Amino acid sequence: MTQVDINPDRLADRLERLGRIGETPTGMRRMAFTPADVEGRAYVAGLMREAGLTVRTDTAGNVIGRVEGSVPGLPAIGIGSHADTVPNGGKYDGALGVMAAIECLQNLKDRSVATRHPIEVLNFTNEEGTSFHTWLFGSSAMAGALRSGDLTAVDVEGVSLGQRLRDVGGDAGRIHEARRERGEFSAYLELHIEQGPVLHGGGVAIGEVTAITGRAALSVCVKGSANHAGTTPMPNRRDALLAASHVVQAVNAIASQEEICRVGTVGIARVSPNAENVIPGVVDLTVDFRDVELDRIAEAQRRLREVCRGLASDRGVEVEVLEHGVTRPTPMNPGLRRVIRAAAEGLGLEVAAVPSGAGHDAQSMAEITDAGMIFVPSVGGVSHSPDEYTRPEDCANGARVLLRSLLAVDAERD
Amino acid sequence: MTQVDINPDRLADRLERLGRIGETPTGMRRMAFTPADVEGRAYVAGLMREAGLTVRTDTAGNVIGRVEGSVPGLPAIGIGSHADTVPNGGKYDGALGVMAAIECLQNLKDRSVATRHPIEVLNFTNEEGTSFHTWLFGSSAMAGALRSGDLTAVDVEGVSLGQRLRDVGGDAGRIHEARRERGEFSAYLELHIEQGPVLHGGGVAIGEVTAITGRAALSVCVKGSANHAGTTPMPNRRDALLAASHVVQAVNAIASQEEICRVGTVGIARVSPNAENVIPGVVDLTVDFRDVELDRIAEAQRRLREVCRGLASDRGVEVEVLEHGVTRPTPMNPGLRRVIRAAAEGLGLEVAAVPSGAGHDAQSMAEITDAGMIFVPSVGGVSHSPDEYTRPEDCANGARVLLRSLLAVDAERD
Repeated sequence: MTQVDINPDRLADRLERLGRIGETPTGMRRMAFTPADVEGRAYVAGLMREAGLTVRTDTAGNVIGRVEGSVPGLPAIGIGSHADTVPNGGKYDGALGVMAAIECLQNLKDRSVATRHPIEVLNFTNEEGTSFHTWLFGSSAMAGALRSGDLTAVDVEGVSLGQRLRDVGGDAGRIHEARRERGEFSAYLELHIEQGPVLHGGGVAIGEVTAITGRAALSVCVKGSANHAGTTPMPNRRDALLAASHVVQAVNAIASQEEICRVGTVGIARVSPNAENVIPGVVDLTVDFRDVELDRIAEAQRRLREVCRGLASDRGVEVEVLEHGVTRPTPMNPGLRRVIRAAAEGLGLEVAAVPSGAGHDAQSMAEITDAGMIFVPSVGGVSHSPDEYTRPEDCANGARVLLRSLLAVDAERD
Repeated sequence: MTQVDINPDRLADRLERLGRIGETPTGMRRMAFTPADVEGRAYVAGLMREAGLTVRTDTAGNVIGRVEGSVPGLPAIGIGSHADTVPNGGKYDGALGVMAAIECLQNLKDRSVATRHPIEVLNFTNEEGTSFHTWLFGSSAMAGALRSGDLTAVDVEGVSLGQRLRDVGGDAGRIHEARRERGEFSAYLELHIEQGPVLHGGGVAIGEVTAITGRAALSVCVKGSANHAGTTPMPNRRDALLAASHVVQAVNAIASQEEICRVGTVGIARVSPNAENVIPGVVDLTVDFRDVELDRIAEAQRRLREVCRGLASDRGVEVEVLEHGVTRPTPMNPGLRRVIRAAAEGLGLEVAAVPSGAGHDAQSMAEITDAGMIFVPSVGGVSHSPDEYTRPEDCANGARVLLRSLLAVDAERD
């Protein structure tokens, strides 16, 4: 088993080739359902076949390459990620997980190593959710966790996701056929770039992911009173932007000084009427709280509502806090975490336990099987940007840990 | 002289009639150069003729109604305001000054009272500057104070102000003919609603304006670093919106707690990329400081730059402060202020000295003659809104003070 290795140069080369499909001067534009996505999928499917896999596209558009195992009747082990990108994204987010999975299978074929379990390499549809806000689409369909409205979501051109699915070989009318039952998979493993600065900053080669962070998506609407910026004395003002500035600072403090949850962000601020000589009358903010513990997300929300009540009474504005959805944290399987750590240590690589601040297909798959994730460093923590970069040696380290983990799971599990 | 009075019912009725021209369910839309503006001008010109005035339109589109005086060779006394509105504006801003001026002249005609000076009722073009950001256009042309680019400014339809001028009888090619020299006017008096809450809140009938506030228009650009809201730990962030929230609070504090200038406003905030799950990378703000003293405006700017330097070094962001223009404060003529105060007191009306926080045609006219302004209460201080309202008795009080002031100036001055 120790003779099986991956080919770092081939992996780097294929990542680079995939990274030219949909490349623009301002970053990758291989968004789900675009011609570049279709071309990327064809490239992925071709490499799967080259690695000896039988390739099919399920009704959710997921590209699945399967090789049977030596022991009849065992459930499959899934490995993979996604090949779609955000607009102006990078070449590693998602792509590394798919290319590394194929690299693992290519080596098993080249060395004629048979696994006990069937292996499925999974390239999921529309992980990023671009155009439709239906992120984790393909893996959610596989886990039977599609949300109502996912299939009827419409893009800016007025075309529904259901229609776009046809462009990648899916079929909205038979979407239920993409669903896989608990027991069909023995485990799911995903390699991904960290998209954060912890591993790169600490000089750590491998992250074994403790949990995928949960998230509360909220909005805060501050209503004051629009009025003339020249004629309204300061004491008579009900300035919505001034009140909103305190909300922005409170969200930051909840995660930083107060350490209630891991991160808190106001990403959107919309001011009305947004005119130079008019005191802002209404400001709409979005608030995003994340933590690996649901209680901490709930406590952050409670604290935000408390701050907003205080602002409303102190500043004579109306403040409405709305919750738009809470995604529960997804702990990674403890057994798989141990497997991943042992694989890294066996390769002499430093490994750290890290949470994932971003969402991943692994959290959908965790609904129907045990899931584990491997992170490799992102230079500077940059992601969703043309500057996203993971060094070839880090990509290779990740692929090696994935291969060792896959073989360990195959050996240990039934 | 005391027998001459205005007719409050006629004034209220004509204000209401003018207020139906360009009225919509969401407020007045009698913006300069629109068909409603053309109709409003025709209504105004007709009333001027009824009041015995000789009407002409100058090359800046200003509608001018003139009656000669009994003493040959005396300069004219100008009274007036503007009949254009902002989009979704009210029925009193500007309109009251024009209608009250005509009401004064109608009464002089009805009572066969001749003035010593010629009187010119002035209805200025595009005071609000809507569509072209060329505010005080007509009065600036009259004062020879047009800015370079005013005539070539282009609206959203790509039509220049020069072209639009033709629609209201002006002529951009001969705009210099609209200019009036120092010495052509003995004085200019303007009645206007306060557009602020001071008079109405204090139950004071008449404001004698001390000065028209000066203004500094600035922008602040805060540059941080856009990054993933889930994966970027709090200590690694350079959040432009968080830094900008401190700028918003500083601008407020400079005018309120620190009392450096009279008012300070952040009216516009634009966030980039403005996405729910991305830490804001760039925030652009506008800052508006106003005071009747230029030194205080300069001190407010100095303080803002100091705060921004501190933010840049404390928070690892770049902060750029740009000045886009400073309008100097315009003090009203002390002699005219005394005349206005005496006129109000002679009518038994309570009078208060107030600054004007908004700009007015009187500040252009102050470039070529002595200027004075009379304010009447705005209910709730509301303006530039369909809810703008000044009670008929306050309109009548203002018109009476205007008439008395006009007759006093006519009697006193040469």
